[in-house]
Amino acid sequence: MSLSDTKAATTRTALTRHRERARTDRADLHAVLDAGLVGHIGLIRDGAPVVLPTGYGRVDDTVYVHGSTGAGWLRIADGAPVCLTVTHVDGIVYARSVFNHSMNYRSAVVHGSARLVTDPAEKLAALRAITEQLSPGSWEHAREPDRRELAATAVFAVDLGEASVKVRTGPPGDDEPDIATGGRWAGVLPVRTVFGIPETCPTLPSDAPVPAHVGDRRPA
Amino acid sequence: MSLSDTKAATTRTALTRHRERARTDRADLHAVLDAGLVGHIGLIRDGAPVVLPTGYGRVDDTVYVHGSTGAGWLRIADGAPVCLTVTHVDGIVYARSVFNHSMNYRSAVVHGSARLVTDPAEKLAALRAITEQLSPGSWEHAREPDRRELAATAVFAVDLGEASVKVRTGPPGDDEPDIATGGRWAGVLPVRTVFGIPETCPTLPSDAPVPAHVGDRRPA
Repeated sequence: MSLSDTKAATTRTALTRHRERARTDRADLHAVLDAGLVGHIGLIRDGAPVVLPTGYGRVDDTVYVHGSTGAGWLRIADGAPVCLTVTHVDGIVYARSVFNHSMNYRSAVVHGSARLVTDPAEKLAALRAITEQLSPGSWEHAREPDRRELAATAVFAVDLGEASVKVRTGPPGDDEPDIATGGRWAGVLPVRTVFGIPETCPTLPSDAPVPAHVGDRRPA
Repeated sequence: MSLSDTKAATTRTALTRHRERARTDRADLHAVLDAGLVGHIGLIRDGAPVVLPTGYGRVDDTVYVHGSTGAGWLRIADGAPVCLTVTHVDGIVYARSVFNHSMNYRSAVVHGSARLVTDPAEKLAALRAITEQLSPGSWEHAREPDRRELAATAVFAVDLGEASVKVRTGPPGDDEPDIATGGRWAGVLPVRTVFGIPETCPTLPSDAPVPAHVGDRRPA
């Protein structure tokens, strides 16, 4: 099911399987996107799909991706169809049967047209959102992009109007005969993303204080 | 750069940016794939790219994906072009400038045609590989798929002949003037995937022993 509050379900956002896993609130979509570090963007190149990992950022109901103007994949035509998907793996679901093994996860799939961002203010706001998604606090702490860097960076916008969210939580869904048979363990192994100890750049003194936006950062 | 030991670089595997991040060994490709829990598969549907998270497994130089025959995305035409991408985020790279912020990561991008697996022995081997990728030990511990379950499952193979691997490691690459200016922290915040404490299925006694293949499992 697509986001019912933004647009009626279209063929590509209507889930064909496990409709009970669909989430229809815009807040759910925002939450899945906002918790991610990396998304996967799909493009069509020479008649074939290409899927590449990318950073991204969100401003209201628009997601932005960016890259060097020299990057092959960013030579997207203005208006070309793209798909941006963000997935969080939350657990591995062990069932009594191989068939019912699964994953607990949250995923957002955004379908849309890539719009090249040319307005300077929107471009700067997009770069800020992308930076803050990857590294909250960096926009204030680090040096902002200069004219040369802005010119070397292409930014594309994708509207969130056509998007779907799918979430699986909870224990395995084993068949009754397998439960009755017994003798096999079933359950969930939780999966989490954690941060390690910050590694200060070798060009700085090793005892350079780590700022709070890095040292105190916790996964979203 | 594509995998030079399997095939010459093609237009789509030749990296246009950061060629120093390319890895050309087949072993590197296998290692990135084998360490993953979820991949992102790209297809073309109605002229637009679709990117979906999926489990997968590898046997030698073939990767397999599977799903319910009722799943919309698995109605892939035999021979349709697909792209399977697996990404590991290893660290967040904080630079003195916003522009030089980056990620440490390993990613594998596999381009190919989806081949519907019809041979029963290959299909079973593929499902075993997919199961063992998600949950090592489960193929032995859990009940193997029966005829009905096999019939309800579609498996597609993608050859690893045309694939690329990209890896970024190490500290930020700041510009000299930013380093000289000083006053800003730079470094890497490591990112890791960890497993939590196994949660036994509520249909089992809460003190049911957790088997070693789950309880002792560590991230790849």
